[in-house]
Amino acid sequence: MATMLSYCLTDADIEQETLERLFRRAVGASFNAISVDGCMSTNDTALILANGIAKNREIKGNTASALVFGKMLEEVLRELALAMVRDGEGATKTVDITVEGARTGAEARRIAYAVANSNLVKTAFFGGDPNWGRIISAAGAQGINLDVPRVRLFFEDLEVFAGGMGIAQPVRKLREVMAKDYIRLRLAVGKGKGTFRIFTSDLGFDYVKINAHYHT
Amino acid sequence: MATMLSYCLTDADIEQETLERLFRRAVGASFNAISVDGCMSTNDTALILANGIAKNREIKGNTASALVFGKMLEEVLRELALAMVRDGEGATKTVDITVEGARTGAEARRIAYAVANSNLVKTAFFGGDPNWGRIISAAGAQGINLDVPRVRLFFEDLEVFAGGMGIAQPVRKLREVMAKDYIRLRLAVGKGKGTFRIFTSDLGFDYVKINAHYHT
Repeated sequence: MATMLSYCLTDADIEQETLERLFRRAVGASFNAISVDGCMSTNDTALILANGIAKNREIKGNTASALVFGKMLEEVLRELALAMVRDGEGATKTVDITVEGARTGAEARRIAYAVANSNLVKTAFFGGDPNWGRIISAAGAQGINLDVPRVRLFFEDLEVFAGGMGIAQPVRKLREVMAKDYIRLRLAVGKGKGTFRIFTSDLGFDYVKINAHYHT
Repeated sequence: MATMLSYCLTDADIEQETLERLFRRAVGASFNAISVDGCMSTNDTALILANGIAKNREIKGNTASALVFGKMLEEVLRELALAMVRDGEGATKTVDITVEGARTGAEARRIAYAVANSNLVKTAFFGGDPNWGRIISAAGAQGINLDVPRVRLFFEDLEVFAGGMGIAQPVRKLREVMAKDYIRLRLAVGKGKGTFRIFTSDLGFDYVKINAHYHT
């Protein structure tokens, strides 16, 4: 999470077991799906408290109300998690990476984290370089058997890699994408149905400044 | 390795199987025990060729001559690997980290890589801060059960962490250690006999400059 204490409060009346299950799922898609520098803190905490004073009909199980509550909870936590990434040390950009077509969700997660934590990828985003080579390389160095000819990579709607090689796109269009402060990446590996979405920041001079000048 | 093609040539007469075994071991303690930014390249290659024209008695098995050859080979490869770390993008320091007392060698390796690849640890070395907290934290975030009261950390000969807390050392002495361009760390985790030694560089402004300004 990045040394963060997160407290969520709701006045909803919700069964404890249902709340815990929905909270874990929402945390998995938000606080546990971000990376600033790949480091974790021993302090990282996410808590939710519900006091029930809304006096609604108790939310429980897999009912429609539980589904809606879970969806809203995920939206709130994702907004908070994204604020942390935007506020990452020296961050100038948020990169929203979706890995799809992995054999399993866990495999997609591993690839997504490898790309999100790669210093080479992060500095390329800081410099505004649409460097697909560093992304494919980070994904490929995970010991997962990639079927490279089936791998496809998109920067927003621009396909930059397919069939084992880079796809030339107009420089003007690539510049437009890389100049954004929120960039969506999609990496399709073409093996199965596993997906994972992660949010990360770029790595710039201010990350070094902040963390090198801090003294204990 | 860091996008490197390494070719080792020897005129020794040595049995192929013995050469391969000794080479793998030496590579494991050199090229595969360094980290600049934690990224691997698809090009990384290490080859050894022996043509036997020295006409020595063939080196084979676990004989004394094989032992000596293996030791010398490891020294050569370590010198080359250290040159790569010193030459790391923007590197100003080499950090020589030994993890000892892990349950297994693999566990020691995992802890060593976590510390060596931590951007927070690397920026602390760039800034000259003897930040033991970031080192213990990187080791502790690996999902390995650390018995914290038994963990000890040394910067050169200065013990900075033991019994679950930091040990105050004279600032002058700590400054002396951190000003070196080659710093030895020892992290003893007190669980078993697994050890691993890794060489890494710090992370400074020039790493960002070199990798952000490179354009494809």
